[in-house]
Amino acid sequence: MTITYQHLKDGSAAEARAAIRAGQYQGHTAGLGSGVLQANLAIMPEKYALDFMRFCQRNPKPCPLTGVSDTGNPMMATLGQDIDIRTDVPAYNVYRDGKLAETVTDIQALWQDDFVAFALGCSFTFEHALQRAGLPLWHVENNTTVPMFRTGIDTVPAGPFSGKMVVSMRALPQDRVEQAAGISRRYPLAHGAPVHWGDPAEIGIQDITRPDWGDAALVGAGETPVFWACGVTPQVAIETAALPLCITHKPGHMLITDVSENAEVPDYRT
Amino acid sequence: MTITYQHLKDGSAAEARAAIRAGQYQGHTAGLGSGVLQANLAIMPEKYALDFMRFCQRNPKPCPLTGVSDTGNPMMATLGQDIDIRTDVPAYNVYRDGKLAETVTDIQALWQDDFVAFALGCSFTFEHALQRAGLPLWHVENNTTVPMFRTGIDTVPAGPFSGKMVVSMRALPQDRVEQAAGISRRYPLAHGAPVHWGDPAEIGIQDITRPDWGDAALVGAGETPVFWACGVTPQVAIETAALPLCITHKPGHMLITDVSENAEVPDYRT
Repeated sequence: MTITYQHLKDGSAAEARAAIRAGQYQGHTAGLGSGVLQANLAIMPEKYALDFMRFCQRNPKPCPLTGVSDTGNPMMATLGQDIDIRTDVPAYNVYRDGKLAETVTDIQALWQDDFVAFALGCSFTFEHALQRAGLPLWHVENNTTVPMFRTGIDTVPAGPFSGKMVVSMRALPQDRVEQAAGISRRYPLAHGAPVHWGDPAEIGIQDITRPDWGDAALVGAGETPVFWACGVTPQVAIETAALPLCITHKPGHMLITDVSENAEVPDYRT
Repeated sequence: MTITYQHLKDGSAAEARAAIRAGQYQGHTAGLGSGVLQANLAIMPEKYALDFMRFCQRNPKPCPLTGVSDTGNPMMATLGQDIDIRTDVPAYNVYRDGKLAETVTDIQALWQDDFVAFALGCSFTFEHALQRAGLPLWHVENNTTVPMFRTGIDTVPAGPFSGKMVVSMRALPQDRVEQAAGISRRYPLAHGAPVHWGDPAEIGIQDITRPDWGDAALVGAGETPVFWACGVTPQVAIETAALPLCITHKPGHMLITDVSENAEVPDYRT
């Protein structure tokens, strides 16, 4: 039995995860589990976990750490009721030696006793807050993927993890940029305030019409491009590190947690 | 040559650290390096570092992680210009097997190639913000140490690290408690919003006049006791874990960073 996106859209986070775990839904998660944090995912052997955690601590805007499993334990105990990271994400990318080897919908067969799973906050959270404030989001209105760019900004390295920061761009009316910055700053678990707005060249972006990931988006008259740190940054750092084995979510196919989007700390029990 | 507290009080963070490194100042750091984050300190062998980092991630209010060194590297590169964690803190407590073994003013002789140093935000930051808003702080006005209590609230364990949450108490006028909560919530690197206010028994505190650490403070008529998560929590967790060797700062004798108190992320270069 397959469950449709439309059906899950009206349900809870737990219902969405149950359908995903049962293999009944393998699509993207935007708009599911209304009001809860969704998360980017990175799973790797413990050997690399301390360095990756240092990388996240040193680059909290692109890599806002929201949950870390115990070594070998697939349950994300702080992020929700009964979250098994091996089955509860719609699709996973498996990287071997830094290269995408396969995309799967379940990683039970790949799970290792030395794996540590990391959940990192994502932009859905601050986008919802911007929308509640009446700010227009072109990529949402036009049903495209937000444009993402590799910048000239260096991340702070940790062990094998390093690279340039990736940002996502949303064009906003000039006179509402400060408001958007103030709103998103309240969400440190979801990339926080923008890293830049205005001239893209200042952060090393040569052509705003040609994103490195996602779809191009219009910057209208009277609008300013606003750039937020993006969860693709750790993905690039992981590829650069070329770990023998590392598993991430498939972009757009996130972990749906039970933590409220407005939570001060990423623990669904508080 | 000894440098007085009064002399350093008017200087920069770098001046204070230079005096501390030179052995010219070994006192407490409250009020020094005006406007910058100060930090609690925990140094331990790498073997325990991933679990300690998970403990901090899972308990961000008592343990707001602001900086982590590379293994064996005593420089806290993200927290300031030329911070050597072996010499730049006025006094250190050395724990062996979970027990305080000695207090020293320099740990160059104790430093190990496998050490990882952790800096955790402290309450000075949000206290300054409360003071700027005109909120009275009894312990500051009376030149005593803030009262701290062991609560009945369990921390989220990680590996050998566990225990009850420790809180600090500040009594505030009833009608200004919400304001104080709102202000301190803006400082996630410094314990964030209070964990509780009102009846101390609700969080397992039996006698508000008998703190477990610090000095008793008056709760005046019309005042409400307000409780914030406290940096003594990781200290207790470290003692419970009974690591063979662990070094912390001596209470009140903190690391003075170059990171602004109002920084969104704990990196002095941003």
